[in-house]
Amino acid sequence: MDTGNLQECIHHRFEQVKLLTTALTHSSYANEQEGYADNERLEFLGDAVLELCISEEGFKRYPCAPEGQLTRIRSQLVKEKSLASLARELQLHQYVRLGKGEEIQGGRDRDALLADTFEALLGAVFLDGGFDAAKKTILLIFENEWPERAMLPETKDYKSRLQEVSQERFKDRPVYVLAGTSGPEHEKLFDVDATLPTGEVFRGQGTSVKRAEQYAAAKALASLSDSDDIFSD
Amino acid sequence: MDTGNLQECIHHRFEQVKLLTTALTHSSYANEQEGYADNERLEFLGDAVLELCISEEGFKRYPCAPEGQLTRIRSQLVKEKSLASLARELQLHQYVRLGKGEEIQGGRDRDALLADTFEALLGAVFLDGGFDAAKKTILLIFENEWPERAMLPETKDYKSRLQEVSQERFKDRPVYVLAGTSGPEHEKLFDVDATLPTGEVFRGQGTSVKRAEQYAAAKALASLSDSDDIFSD
Repeated sequence: MDTGNLQECIHHRFEQVKLLTTALTHSSYANEQEGYADNERLEFLGDAVLELCISEEGFKRYPCAPEGQLTRIRSQLVKEKSLASLARELQLHQYVRLGKGEEIQGGRDRDALLADTFEALLGAVFLDGGFDAAKKTILLIFENEWPERAMLPETKDYKSRLQEVSQERFKDRPVYVLAGTSGPEHEKLFDVDATLPTGEVFRGQGTSVKRAEQYAAAKALASLSDSDDIFSD
Repeated sequence: MDTGNLQECIHHRFEQVKLLTTALTHSSYANEQEGYADNERLEFLGDAVLELCISEEGFKRYPCAPEGQLTRIRSQLVKEKSLASLARELQLHQYVRLGKGEEIQGGRDRDALLADTFEALLGAVFLDGGFDAAKKTILLIFENEWPERAMLPETKDYKSRLQEVSQERFKDRPVYVLAGTSGPEHEKLFDVDATLPTGEVFRGQGTSVKRAEQYAAAKALASLSDSDDIFSD
């Protein structure tokens, strides 16, 4: 099998071509033929390689995004459907070796099979060239997949940002109410509830009312951006 | 805070000490104080760093383990309870900065909080020293956590191995039955069912009865080792 084009597309030239062959070998093929390993172990590894590279890049691209938002961005990028689509761009369906039964049942165009093969390929690059090689390949392949930076809150002034978003989306402002205080007088803690026009309430706690408000606003923003439909399929 | 001992324990001396400080800062503390970032984003990153390093090491340690078994080994090693226990060995409960409310509610000894802090610490090592530094730290910390190699099937002759295991565990052999064939005469495929003394059936397909039997046996072995209690808590 000539994999020259594929190696060019992923910007990695394999030293150990056997790794590439294994990555492209579905278990249905390995079961039928003598002497072939299937790609399932490489897929296990590649899944983790992909997860780390996307996590690191997300961490750097969105310096103000809270953890929940990073998780959501990552899961959108690495979901089966997205990976299958990238696999098709790399023409992986042309390279993968399938058993007869799988071929007859249309496995060559199944999202799950293509996504698994894609991950196995990344596992093979990682073993062949190390973490940096895998990262280079992954960042190139995912270059155009990242949601726009502008969609994410960039500011530390969560209260102002929430007001803009709320006005734009609900044509009304959020309301802040001091819900209570706790602790002794000299180290009092404040609880503030931010209520959105939808009725949803987010509580923040801090050593001043102002800080508690900021925290409540940040929570509300994180929740709103979680439910954003910014990743339409 | 003097973190010299901690840095020694994890075999990493931080260039950017601020990363270490952030890793040790719980959100409850950051909410109360001015000027501190919390460790949630680092935890997001550290979780993925840990997953990859454990995946790679498992891949290398168990060259014959099927993917399902590698997944199970990994999830046992990185589960919250295991991480919390490693965090306690590193005395992380002494270093983590908590808010007053969290402190009062006993957060300092909560498994979830300790496991999260542990992951954040790994994320900080990764950002500070790169993948190789994080891998070194993780392999050292997990050195004694790996299940024994002997527990895993090492052979490619799955049928013999399954017979041994079945005899030992169920005092009886598995039974192989040709369940059917498919395809044209010159490229026939065989389906074989391996039935364990428990009644569980595992089907293998191959270009010969022998290959189909091996495949069915491998599936049965993978399932048996999945349900092994080799990771007692």
